[in-house]
Amino acid sequence: MRATVFQAPGDVRVADVPDPAIREPTDVVARVLRGAICGSDLWAYRGDIDTAGRAGNRLGHEWIGIVEEVGARVETLSPGDAVIAPFAFSDGTCEFCLAGLPTSCPSGGAWGGPDNDGGQGEAVRAPFADASLVKIPAEAATDDDLLAKLLPLTDVMGTGHHAAVCARVQPGGTAVVVGDGAVGLCAVLACNRLGADRIVSVGRHKDRLQIAERFGATHVVNEHDGETVERVRELTHGGAESVLECVGMQSSMDVAVDVVRPGGTVSFVGIPIGVEKVDLQRMFGENIALRGGVAPVRAYLPDLAADVLAGWLDPSPVLDMTVDLDDVPDGYRAMTDRIAVKVKIDV
Amino acid sequence: MRATVFQAPGDVRVADVPDPAIREPTDVVARVLRGAICGSDLWAYRGDIDTAGRAGNRLGHEWIGIVEEVGARVETLSPGDAVIAPFAFSDGTCEFCLAGLPTSCPSGGAWGGPDNDGGQGEAVRAPFADASLVKIPAEAATDDDLLAKLLPLTDVMGTGHHAAVCARVQPGGTAVVVGDGAVGLCAVLACNRLGADRIVSVGRHKDRLQIAERFGATHVVNEHDGETVERVRELTHGGAESVLECVGMQSSMDVAVDVVRPGGTVSFVGIPIGVEKVDLQRMFGENIALRGGVAPVRAYLPDLAADVLAGWLDPSPVLDMTVDLDDVPDGYRAMTDRIAVKVKIDV
Repeated sequence: MRATVFQAPGDVRVADVPDPAIREPTDVVARVLRGAICGSDLWAYRGDIDTAGRAGNRLGHEWIGIVEEVGARVETLSPGDAVIAPFAFSDGTCEFCLAGLPTSCPSGGAWGGPDNDGGQGEAVRAPFADASLVKIPAEAATDDDLLAKLLPLTDVMGTGHHAAVCARVQPGGTAVVVGDGAVGLCAVLACNRLGADRIVSVGRHKDRLQIAERFGATHVVNEHDGETVERVRELTHGGAESVLECVGMQSSMDVAVDVVRPGGTVSFVGIPIGVEKVDLQRMFGENIALRGGVAPVRAYLPDLAADVLAGWLDPSPVLDMTVDLDDVPDGYRAMTDRIAVKVKIDV
Repeated sequence: MRATVFQAPGDVRVADVPDPAIREPTDVVARVLRGAICGSDLWAYRGDIDTAGRAGNRLGHEWIGIVEEVGARVETLSPGDAVIAPFAFSDGTCEFCLAGLPTSCPSGGAWGGPDNDGGQGEAVRAPFADASLVKIPAEAATDDDLLAKLLPLTDVMGTGHHAAVCARVQPGGTAVVVGDGAVGLCAVLACNRLGADRIVSVGRHKDRLQIAERFGATHVVNEHDGETVERVRELTHGGAESVLECVGMQSSMDVAVDVVRPGGTVSFVGIPIGVEKVDLQRMFGENIALRGGVAPVRAYLPDLAADVLAGWLDPSPVLDMTVDLDDVPDGYRAMTDRIAVKVKIDV
């Protein structure tokens, strides 16, 4: 089959790779319908981190597909079923899976890399398929719009929702979302979905802040206009009880901690690769909590998918560019150059 | 009157100072019965920080007393009432006081320093007395044992309780307390009071770890024996859901983050003056929350005092040395030299 392979920083290729096959009786093999390129795929592409940055590694951890083959112990899935995958698989039986934290499953893992198929390819072997994949209606698989609405749930929408949950966004509450990438925009949508009254979106791109407004931001603050902290504090009458840090850089974390209200919570869901430290003195003095991490997307998928299918949730505007599988390298370039927020792959 | 005054690092004196008098109609003046020396008083004494470190500053923020005079607008207190004070005063009417976070009260403040009487003296002018002070039964004022049991509630017991609350200690749960100072020991007692099943106390002093066992620690780990993290992980079968960091040093924070279970919480209640950074990568990867700060002791005082008065709670073993007011300098030396865990002052 054809699949996207990491070659070197700045060089991803769509190449011929072995067809996936059932290895464990709990596996399925699925044909991929839609994939996507994630902001976190760019870390290796830009050479910022080593993770997944070895030649030959498979790429992509966001996908929707059709089950083609099932292992002997798969109970809930059959060939022909349409499924959506969270960005990590998990066994569904361990302490952490049962507690709603499948990303800490000791048997779990992520799509792609040296050992697993990635979502940016024609097919995937999916381990622990009963536990990891979520069935969606068969008719969704032929509905291009619906696929676009569901696709962000594989990662960025689940991650934005995690940011909102960790920051304890409340009905009627005030939330500040720092970051206008795909996760930050989805976080705005998640705050809106959870009933926040006042949502301030902080970003650096006019066009993305417009999506934030469409997603329910009541106020936007463009960091290029300066005095970000002062303006956010003014808009939130002294700080918000919920602040969602959706970037993972030192400057964004600093803004987040500076605009939270005493007793409030900063959540963080961007890999904090650029964060050296947090202002513990301020956190201590004002009882500010820091809470977040890699999003347990699998735990959120059924609820979020139900809302999409009901027509109540539509994160698809973050997917502002579409490529065919062969043109995935163009997608990486477009996201790196910030021409696209997020790229959808029609496989 | 006589009161303890900071002169210079290593030099505190009991000196003649002006008698306190009502300044605001919401003030009371109280005669002090019992005071204490806090670990945080030692920061200035050792010259580690400037706070309260100016010559002439008054010292002490832990006290129990008898109301002698009340301002015109004081409603709930009368001369002769016995009262216990939290380490900070607060107006009782602002957003944060009403939310149970009186330490963030914009009108609030702490005893001592350049502007207020301290608890290590004969009397105190107490601002916002209705809101700040908690009445205790008159007979408690003449009961030496009961005064010793109540005195830690002014700070260290309330702070240990805050650590347990912030770390989400649950009935039947597992908690690790890092630190065997007065706060750490009180935190063990708080975990016990909240019903934790397994409580691991991590410290460096054999005698203090014995108090921890008396307070309900099911296991103690002496850091001098090495491999602290490994041993705590073993005792907690891979980490505790609740870890209470009660020191405020880099090494203690590092241990705390290393022994928390995925999805768990590290609370921190020691001024993080020695903490440069926390391991955000681990926090991110395992969804570990960090939560804590200066303890809103006033909010906890009524419940904790009720438990002491009912005979269910006794943190007095942390007070292992008693001095008269004139001998307060000896108390500072004893705590600095770690001869005493915490010093009670019989004024």
